[in-house]
Amino acid sequence: MNNFTYYNPTKIEFGKEKQNKIGEYIEQSGIKKVLLVYGGGSIKRSTLYDDIVASLNKNSIEFIELSGVVSNPLLSKTNEGITLAKENNIEAILAVGGGSVADSAKAIAAGAKYDGDVWDFFIQKAQITEALPVFTVMTLSATASEMNGNAVIINDETKQKYSIASVLVNPKVSVINPELMATVSKEYLAYSAVDIISHCIEVYFTATTQPHFNSRIVESIIKTVMETTEILLENPNDYDARAEFAWAAIQGLNGLTPAGTAGGSFPNHMIEHSLSALYNVAHGAGLAVVIPAWMKWYKEQNIAQFKRFSQEIFGSDDADIGIEKLEEWFSKIGAPTTLKEVNIPRDGIEALAINANGTATMWGMGEYYSVETIIEILERA
Amino acid sequence: MNNFTYYNPTKIEFGKEKQNKIGEYIEQSGIKKVLLVYGGGSIKRSTLYDDIVASLNKNSIEFIELSGVVSNPLLSKTNEGITLAKENNIEAILAVGGGSVADSAKAIAAGAKYDGDVWDFFIQKAQITEALPVFTVMTLSATASEMNGNAVIINDETKQKYSIASVLVNPKVSVINPELMATVSKEYLAYSAVDIISHCIEVYFTATTQPHFNSRIVESIIKTVMETTEILLENPNDYDARAEFAWAAIQGLNGLTPAGTAGGSFPNHMIEHSLSALYNVAHGAGLAVVIPAWMKWYKEQNIAQFKRFSQEIFGSDDADIGIEKLEEWFSKIGAPTTLKEVNIPRDGIEALAINANGTATMWGMGEYYSVETIIEILERA
Repeated sequence: MNNFTYYNPTKIEFGKEKQNKIGEYIEQSGIKKVLLVYGGGSIKRSTLYDDIVASLNKNSIEFIELSGVVSNPLLSKTNEGITLAKENNIEAILAVGGGSVADSAKAIAAGAKYDGDVWDFFIQKAQITEALPVFTVMTLSATASEMNGNAVIINDETKQKYSIASVLVNPKVSVINPELMATVSKEYLAYSAVDIISHCIEVYFTATTQPHFNSRIVESIIKTVMETTEILLENPNDYDARAEFAWAAIQGLNGLTPAGTAGGSFPNHMIEHSLSALYNVAHGAGLAVVIPAWMKWYKEQNIAQFKRFSQEIFGSDDADIGIEKLEEWFSKIGAPTTLKEVNIPRDGIEALAINANGTATMWGMGEYYSVETIIEILERA
Repeated sequence: MNNFTYYNPTKIEFGKEKQNKIGEYIEQSGIKKVLLVYGGGSIKRSTLYDDIVASLNKNSIEFIELSGVVSNPLLSKTNEGITLAKENNIEAILAVGGGSVADSAKAIAAGAKYDGDVWDFFIQKAQITEALPVFTVMTLSATASEMNGNAVIINDETKQKYSIASVLVNPKVSVINPELMATVSKEYLAYSAVDIISHCIEVYFTATTQPHFNSRIVESIIKTVMETTEILLENPNDYDARAEFAWAAIQGLNGLTPAGTAGGSFPNHMIEHSLSALYNVAHGAGLAVVIPAWMKWYKEQNIAQFKRFSQEIFGSDDADIGIEKLEEWFSKIGAPTTLKEVNIPRDGIEALAINANGTATMWGMGEYYSVETIIEILERA
């Protein structure tokens, strides 16, 4: 087991009605003015927006708004938020939405306390040393952004999809009410399931030190996500399934699964980020395309763990069957598993590989994942 | 799934050599003077005491000492610590030892900021509203005290073994170096294994709402503890097994396993506390005696979960076999499973039941666990 630091100071407020207390949670931190960040307005089609505003008003918390955050969130929108925060003496950022909104809020929180260009943090030109507190009310479960310090943003000019990671932008309080997620489309539910599974298996397969305990936790998360996804596709209003799905999603990327591992990396995310950046593919859809291809390419390098995966998740000790069954399951829940299904032509592969190799280089894997290697992987998709 | 709040702000510094940084961790919080709490002096037989002192000195942290904390820690010693803390303007408590030392440190931390009698918190006459920060360096893994806000203390006058629970006494930083645990006796390793398993199964069996995800996490912890205990009994110096054991122990009582459950209780702990209080039985040994008896008595009330346990842990769908195999496993690792083995005579049962019913009443289970019922359970032991 490798040395590690585990520190996750986010408070999770989980369950029914909890969004109505968001003003109270913010007020308890002595905060009087927030920037309310959200997406395309779906929170106004339900009562959520009104509920949030009522709770803020009740607790005498002023707010200004930034709407229009899109999935695969953009740097231009982040910069808009930073300007608003700086000009209005904003004391905290409140994200109401899914992972993209939470990620944008984190980038704004860091940028608002920085004199330079926030992109400096993403290209590792500068380190985050200070940030406004972040609060979230989640309407989608997948990225675990609600309980980690990660944010992924696309630079709309350079087409780079890069990330930051700092405990300083871990949300102070995150509200998870599974009822707010009941209207997520079946398509996005499937993409979310793929995303959660991907968070778990990246390190599970690539780590050179992988304790059994960590493998067991990963398998617990995957089994729960598969079980609850199938229930929710049948009955989107099954509260308990939605709740287990949401909580498992959080455990998938809050620092628990990699603690004590060594040598793990995120190659599927690295490659997928190019699909999102160049073709605006939904992150989970892109992952469903990349994962089976990557697994087929990688499996011999950690065959014992691939056999374990196959055994624990699908009851077979044959590594190939595990990969095949996972790919089938992705298809079954409605996720694409080929580049063709996400409308990426064969002659687009090279540009994807060059873009992904840029991320690989940033993540210190540029030599291992050369342009040629990434082409080899993507050709299997 | 039930509504819940999950909040665990303890930072875990896990791995080799980390004890040498304890001064740095304390200094980062701006603390200049600590009360160093430890047990019978085993930390002086190794280099640990010297290492801690060197790290404190290096970071210019003054300290005074409180030694002599015993397992099943006493209120009298806690009060001694509170007096020392108050008289010497202590800014934080540093516990170096096992669960008893950590628990004592927490009680001292709360008592040092309270004008009344610290026992008020234990009998729920007062609520903890403030506490000194607590830091720990652990030499034993079992209670998960290193990552929770619980402390159990015995009132040496009244023979009550009662507890407090407050996030205000969660350690700020806990150092877990599995190497420091290599000298734990086989006996105490076995008791620790039983303790960890007990933390997991209490809610697992008694909850009226128990999500599959939580059951899976519990089973992951139990499998890991059983696997690594067997390895460590053969080879106490197996670092990786010791590390997995230690990390699984923490997950067993840091708030993760009960999150989202409802109706769970801790009857085995409730009954065991009487064995410790009246006969000074080691906590884990007492649990090994109580658990099989309680399981036999309780199983029909949640037969599906007892079958699940048997299946997942021992590969049989027969609930009785699961109980039998667990009892056998306790014996195999050297834990007692009968009152006779811990030198408690049959005519001592009534006094134990009366004492345990006192705890039951405090925990709101006094009617369910009447004196007669507890006698009925203990007669199976």
